[in-house]
Amino acid sequence: MKIIANPEIETWKEICKRPLMQHEGLENSVKNILKKVKEEGDVALRELTLQFDNALLNKIQVQPSEIEEAVSEAPDDLKKAILIASENIRKFHASQQKTENKIETTPGVVCWRMATPIEKIGIYIPGGTAPLFSSVLMIGIPAKLAGCTEIILCTPPDSTGKVNSSILFAANHVGITKIYKIGGAQAIAALAYGTESIPSVYKILGPGNQYVTKAKQLVSLDGVAIDMPAGPSEVLVLADDEANPSFVAADLLSQAEHGEDSQVILVAYTGNFIEKVLVEIENQLLQLPRKEIAQKVLLNSYAIVLSKALSIEFINEYAPEHLIINTKDCDELVNKIKNAGSVFLGGYSPESAGDYASGTNHTLPTNGYARCSGGLSLESFQKYISIQKISKLGLRQLGPTIETMAEAEQLRGHAQAVRIRDEK
Amino acid sequence: MKIIANPEIETWKEICKRPLMQHEGLENSVKNILKKVKEEGDVALRELTLQFDNALLNKIQVQPSEIEEAVSEAPDDLKKAILIASENIRKFHASQQKTENKIETTPGVVCWRMATPIEKIGIYIPGGTAPLFSSVLMIGIPAKLAGCTEIILCTPPDSTGKVNSSILFAANHVGITKIYKIGGAQAIAALAYGTESIPSVYKILGPGNQYVTKAKQLVSLDGVAIDMPAGPSEVLVLADDEANPSFVAADLLSQAEHGEDSQVILVAYTGNFIEKVLVEIENQLLQLPRKEIAQKVLLNSYAIVLSKALSIEFINEYAPEHLIINTKDCDELVNKIKNAGSVFLGGYSPESAGDYASGTNHTLPTNGYARCSGGLSLESFQKYISIQKISKLGLRQLGPTIETMAEAEQLRGHAQAVRIRDEK
Repeated sequence: MKIIANPEIETWKEICKRPLMQHEGLENSVKNILKKVKEEGDVALRELTLQFDNALLNKIQVQPSEIEEAVSEAPDDLKKAILIASENIRKFHASQQKTENKIETTPGVVCWRMATPIEKIGIYIPGGTAPLFSSVLMIGIPAKLAGCTEIILCTPPDSTGKVNSSILFAANHVGITKIYKIGGAQAIAALAYGTESIPSVYKILGPGNQYVTKAKQLVSLDGVAIDMPAGPSEVLVLADDEANPSFVAADLLSQAEHGEDSQVILVAYTGNFIEKVLVEIENQLLQLPRKEIAQKVLLNSYAIVLSKALSIEFINEYAPEHLIINTKDCDELVNKIKNAGSVFLGGYSPESAGDYASGTNHTLPTNGYARCSGGLSLESFQKYISIQKISKLGLRQLGPTIETMAEAEQLRGHAQAVRIRDEK
Repeated sequence: MKIIANPEIETWKEICKRPLMQHEGLENSVKNILKKVKEEGDVALRELTLQFDNALLNKIQVQPSEIEEAVSEAPDDLKKAILIASENIRKFHASQQKTENKIETTPGVVCWRMATPIEKIGIYIPGGTAPLFSSVLMIGIPAKLAGCTEIILCTPPDSTGKVNSSILFAANHVGITKIYKIGGAQAIAALAYGTESIPSVYKILGPGNQYVTKAKQLVSLDGVAIDMPAGPSEVLVLADDEANPSFVAADLLSQAEHGEDSQVILVAYTGNFIEKVLVEIENQLLQLPRKEIAQKVLLNSYAIVLSKALSIEFINEYAPEHLIINTKDCDELVNKIKNAGSVFLGGYSPESAGDYASGTNHTLPTNGYARCSGGLSLESFQKYISIQKISKLGLRQLGPTIETMAEAEQLRGHAQAVRIRDEK
C-alpha cells in the first residue's frame, strides 16, 4: 500500500480515481454479440456458448431433474447457511415496504402513489471458479418480495454443460425456476431482446465482468432498465488508534482478494497505526489462497493519514462502495457520511457480514457512483404509479391556475381541456 | 385517428410501437459536441451557442440583475399561478419523505438505511417558443425538499442572449440561483464534465429534444446519473359510453398539440362512442393555435374498440406515460393497472391538471418505459445508504453462516475476517 500522510485537498481528486482497466475493442466485440443474438436468437446463443464457455449445449434451459440433483447434492452446512442468510435478507428487505397516504393538495384534488412490481426481470449470475450463489439471494429475494411475476436467471455452464449446483440450490430456494445456461454479453442480449427459449425482460440486474457490464449499458440505451454500472469492488476502512490492527488488516484483505482490479483504502489518524496494520497484512496475507490477487490489489491501494474532520470529507469525496468505520465514535461519525454504498460500524461489523448474511444487500454502487445512487433494495424491483382524482369543485378551484400556466407555455389545448369542463 | 375494432392480441405489439423519428448522424454529432466541451470548456460553449442559438454571450451565467428584472416583469396572474402550483407540488412530494426503522435481523445484528440527498444536481430546461417553466417547478421543488446542496440550471438563450423571464421567475421562486445560458447537448456536456464557469454534477434531470436525450444517455455511460430516457409525450384515454365525448376529445387534443412525434390513444368499449369523440375532435381542433401539429399527431394515433377486460390488458401492454380512466368504475379499474406513468381518474381529472398544478410530477416515463420505471419523485433526488452494526455476540451467532458461505464461494479472506474476530 502507498502511504500518504496528510495529502493536500487539491490532490484528493487524483487519489479518488479508481484503477482503470483499459480493454481495447471491448465495445465493438460486445456490439457484435448483441447484434448476433438479436438477429439469430438461440442459434447464436449455442454458437457463442461453444466459443466462450467451450460447452455444447443440449437444452438451453436448466431441466427440473438438474435442479433436483443440485438440491440433493448441496452440502448440509451450506444449505443451512443459505436458509439463515435468506431469512435475514428477507427481513431487512421486507422492512422497506411502505404504504403511502392519499394527499389532498387542494380541496377536491387528491393525489397518491401506488407501488407496483416490475413484472419481468432478468438476473445475471457469473460462473467461473467462484460461484456467486450469494448474489442469487441478494437479487432473487427482494424480487420475490416485490411481486415480480417473471424472474429469469442466466448463468454460464461449465464445459460439460452443467451449471454450478450452489447457484441452482440458491435459485430453487428463492423460488426461481426459469434458469438458462447462458453467460456473458450473449446472456444480456437474450434477456434484453428475447430469443426462442429465453423471454425478454424489462430490467436486468446482477454482477458481471466488463463484457457483461458493457452489454448492460448498451441494451439500456434501447429502453431496458439495468441495476447500475457495476465496477470493481472496493472498501474504505476508517480506523482510530484504538481499533484492532489485525481486524483492520483482515477487512482490507477480504476486499483485496476479490479481483485484481479491486481497491482498498485505509484512512487512519496516525502513521503509527498504519504501520501496525501493514505488519498484520504481511502476516495474514500468507494464509490466503488468493494471495497473488491480493498482493496486486495492495499495490494499487492507499493508506492515508488524515485528521478526523478531513477523514470524513475525504470519504464523502471518495464515495466508497463499502465503508467500515472502526472507531469508538462510529455512531456519531456515520451521521456525517453523505456518499457511501454500505456502512459497517464498530469493530465487529466486517464487510463479509453484509456480503452474505446480515440482511443488507451486497449489490452496491462502485467507482464513486455512490454519489448519485444507493445499492439494490426492494424499490429496485418496483415502480411508483402516481394517481390523481379531482372532483368537479376541485377542478373549478384549480382551473384558473392551470389555464394561466398553460397559456403562458403557449399550450392552448391544455387550457381548453380545463375550460371545456367548466363550461358544461 | 385510425379506428381499430377488437384487434387480435397478436397485433397489440405492433400497435404499441411508438412512432419513431429517425435522425441519421445524431449520435455522431452529439459525440462531437460532448468531446469539444470536455476538451475546450467555456470556449466551446460560447462557440456552440453562437452556432446553435445564434447568440453571442457576454457572461455565461445569468446575473442577479437579470433575475431581478424577470421577477419584476412576470405578470401578476402568472406569479400567483406559479405560487399555487408550487405549494401543491411541494405538499405532494413532501409526503414522499419516509423514515425507516432499525431492524434487528439476528440478535446483535442491527441494519437500517439512511436517505441522503444527491449533493449536486443539474437541471436542463429547453428554450424555444414554449418556455417550460413548469418543469423548473417539477424538478426544482423536490430537489430542494430532498436537500440537494448544489443545483445548477442550464437553459438556452434567445438570439439577444437573454433567458426567458418565466423560467427565471420560477427558478428564483424555487430557490435556484445558479443559472447558465447554455442549451442542447453542450449544456449536458457542461453539467457532466464541468467547465470553467459551470460546475459538474452527479445527476442530470429534465426534458429535451433528441440531441439532449442522446447526450444524457452518452454521459450516463461515463458514470453521471440521469433521470430517464425522455421520449415524445403520449396519453391513453380509456372511456366508457357514459363519458362526455367533448371532455375526451379535449384531453386527446391537449396531448396532440405537444409535438409532431406525440401519440394519443383512445380505448373505448363501443365504436359508437368513438364516432362521437371524433366529431368533437373535428370541432375543437379548429380553435387550437397549434392545430397543424395536432393534426399530424392524430394521423399517427389510434382509436381502439375493446372489451373492458381486454382494455386493461392492452393498457398494461402499452404502458402509457399518461393514462386517463374516464369511466364510472375508475376507482376499481385503477387497481388493475400495472404499467403507467401517471393516472387521472374520472371525468374531472384532465391531464393538464397533473402537467401543472395538482401536485404530482409531470416528468414521466414515455415509450413503454413505465414497465420498468416510475416518474420523478422525491426519491429521484436521494439515495439510500445501508448501515449495519453488529455486536460481538451478534457476530459470534452469525459467524458460522458467513464462514460457510464465504468458503463455498472460495473467498477465504472473507471467512478470515470473521474468524480472526472470534479468536480474539
